[in-house]
Amino acid sequence: MVTVEDVKKAYDNLKSTVRKTPIDESRTISEITGGKVFLKAENLQKTGAFKIRGAFNKIINLSNEEQAKGVIAASAGNHAQGVALAASSAGIRSTIVMPEGASVTKVIATKGYGANVVLSGQNYDESYKKALELQKSEGSVFVHAFDDPYVIAGQGTIAIEILEELPETEFIIVPIGGGGLISGIAVAAKSLKPSVKIIGVQAEGAASAYKARQNNKIIELESAYTIADGIAVRKTGDLTFSLIQKYVDDIITVNDEEIAHAILTLLERSKIVVEGAGAVGAAALIHNKLNIRDRNAVVVISGGNIDANIVSRIIEKGLMKSGRYIRIATVIEDRPGTLYTLLKTVASMRANVVSIFHDRLKQSVPLGQSEVELELETRDPEHVAELLQALEEKGYKIEVVDI
Amino acid sequence: MVTVEDVKKAYDNLKSTVRKTPIDESRTISEITGGKVFLKAENLQKTGAFKIRGAFNKIINLSNEEQAKGVIAASAGNHAQGVALAASSAGIRSTIVMPEGASVTKVIATKGYGANVVLSGQNYDESYKKALELQKSEGSVFVHAFDDPYVIAGQGTIAIEILEELPETEFIIVPIGGGGLISGIAVAAKSLKPSVKIIGVQAEGAASAYKARQNNKIIELESAYTIADGIAVRKTGDLTFSLIQKYVDDIITVNDEEIAHAILTLLERSKIVVEGAGAVGAAALIHNKLNIRDRNAVVVISGGNIDANIVSRIIEKGLMKSGRYIRIATVIEDRPGTLYTLLKTVASMRANVVSIFHDRLKQSVPLGQSEVELELETRDPEHVAELLQALEEKGYKIEVVDI
Repeated sequence: MVTVEDVKKAYDNLKSTVRKTPIDESRTISEITGGKVFLKAENLQKTGAFKIRGAFNKIINLSNEEQAKGVIAASAGNHAQGVALAASSAGIRSTIVMPEGASVTKVIATKGYGANVVLSGQNYDESYKKALELQKSEGSVFVHAFDDPYVIAGQGTIAIEILEELPETEFIIVPIGGGGLISGIAVAAKSLKPSVKIIGVQAEGAASAYKARQNNKIIELESAYTIADGIAVRKTGDLTFSLIQKYVDDIITVNDEEIAHAILTLLERSKIVVEGAGAVGAAALIHNKLNIRDRNAVVVISGGNIDANIVSRIIEKGLMKSGRYIRIATVIEDRPGTLYTLLKTVASMRANVVSIFHDRLKQSVPLGQSEVELELETRDPEHVAELLQALEEKGYKIEVVDI
Repeated sequence: MVTVEDVKKAYDNLKSTVRKTPIDESRTISEITGGKVFLKAENLQKTGAFKIRGAFNKIINLSNEEQAKGVIAASAGNHAQGVALAASSAGIRSTIVMPEGASVTKVIATKGYGANVVLSGQNYDESYKKALELQKSEGSVFVHAFDDPYVIAGQGTIAIEILEELPETEFIIVPIGGGGLISGIAVAAKSLKPSVKIIGVQAEGAASAYKARQNNKIIELESAYTIADGIAVRKTGDLTFSLIQKYVDDIITVNDEEIAHAILTLLERSKIVVEGAGAVGAAALIHNKLNIRDRNAVVVISGGNIDANIVSRIIEKGLMKSGRYIRIATVIEDRPGTLYTLLKTVASMRANVVSIFHDRLKQSVPLGQSEVELELETRDPEHVAELLQALEEKGYKIEVVDI
């Protein structure tokens, strides 16, 4: 088992190595919920995620002999980087097995933190197997991503920082993948302030802890798919499940669309980059899955390691969905002045033109005409509707292009 | 004139209203420069930029009679939001004149902070004129964006926070638009620690202070255009120019491409959203415009109010430029198995497929063939070159698609 004393010891161990991340109010989410909502920004932690806390606490508690042998882990993401930097901060070697299809950015980052990266396996399970083999042949110490008391105690240090800075906290909202983060936070918080409520959030596509709780036993999902790849875990840990059952008040779920919307809100309003897993807590509040009216709630933003091209996709889809961006196509006669006339109508409706794509060659367009695609910045869904109506009144046939 | 005492008074005035933003090391920029580089993240300030400091200090120093009349300002961006929130925090009315083409997001945000927004004028100069008219008819107090001693003293509070948290600071690197931010910081920092160097950074397309310094007199540029729209100021202020001449050690410039690259680096590595103006200091260091080897430098990240669709564009262009993203088009025979064969080669080169666009109808493609466009995630420019070579060796004619 893990106790608050273990977490306090971890806190002393970590003090000089990990960053004490900021806790700031999000006016936007406070207004949506009617509560006072603060974000604990672990995406601004070293390596871009909380994982270094648990990894460093594990490593610092190894014997000299164990440290001399180095550590090994399997991960496609944040745990990889956390173990890599924790090991090099402690001056020991690390080997990280990552799936062959792992994100190029994450592989580069993990190497950059000083790890020996082995690319092996088509998915996490195969990488994990390979890591266990290597562990046996090398005699190094395996650092589990969540089901380890030292790792759990390390993650729990976040609760100490929250309650020190914001003792009036009434809710702590935490993402759940394997359960290491919420277990540590729950153990510490419930002991330091028993009245605090701990709420776990999972992605619908990987609701292993949610289902385990419903069934009162650990459930292994056949698959786990969500844009919140950092918490796409098929099975809760043994230790973490028993801690969750003891200390966590409730578990709720959010879907991928809600997560993407939360990523965009945090990017636009809080000016922070948050990965899918890190955004589930904010998603739950933004989409009214939890009543915190007139309460003080802290949402743990667990990480920010999201590929830039996914950020770009989420922005475009999100803006389109909320009526602030639209791509339309129409056909105009291929002679001077027709494009100008079209743009005049767009301008009179106060839509900003982001880009224009003019195609004379498309086979589906009759000779003498050409297709124009416009990317436009708009105000809201009503504005989009007004714009489309104005264009149709002028005789344009408009097609809204999906992205 | 403005003195360190004015800044200290402002610091006391602001304490409970503004956020004390984090200062954290950027490992990435430290490694590039060989120094120790810290980011003062004013993009995480309320309203997403430092402007609230100066605006609030101005407002709190008004007489009761003046406060009763409310304040007015002209701005297309951060100053608008800063004045709006500062005014409503102080419980007084504000009117903000914004250009008619102002970003929809910024207009919504400014209204959200409680201002009465007037859309008037085709550009800042015209909005400014309108604001002066309204000021005369309403009798309200005009809050200048930079050339005001209270505004300057408010911005200077950032220097106190930096030197309190990081007394070992040797360089402070600060964006310059009209010069309010750097004037305040320079006055305070040079008095608190005379050995500290203050370096200003401007965008090449709006280098008004840079040129004024060269000519030893204020210069009015004919135009100011840069993606760093927050510092696209055609003319330095009178008061700010005299303070810059007295306290600032050097001014350097960066171009738009360097700024875009810095925005992407900060997004990917530091997990923060930074606008163009906020990124110029980081751009200067990333592109070796300043030697800070073995020195402690603090870069002021002044704001994060950038439109999401611009972020998305910068990500795609930046990834493409650094060889981590490529869009290619090729023509394959339109029969079963040919797409599979193409993808097999791509996979064998370990490029990740982001999206596939398959077009049978394009007029330029002969019958019986079809065009395939692939969006791929790649590792670096060498990887791109290897991939293209491998595809060409298999007989594909590849076109690299620009974005």
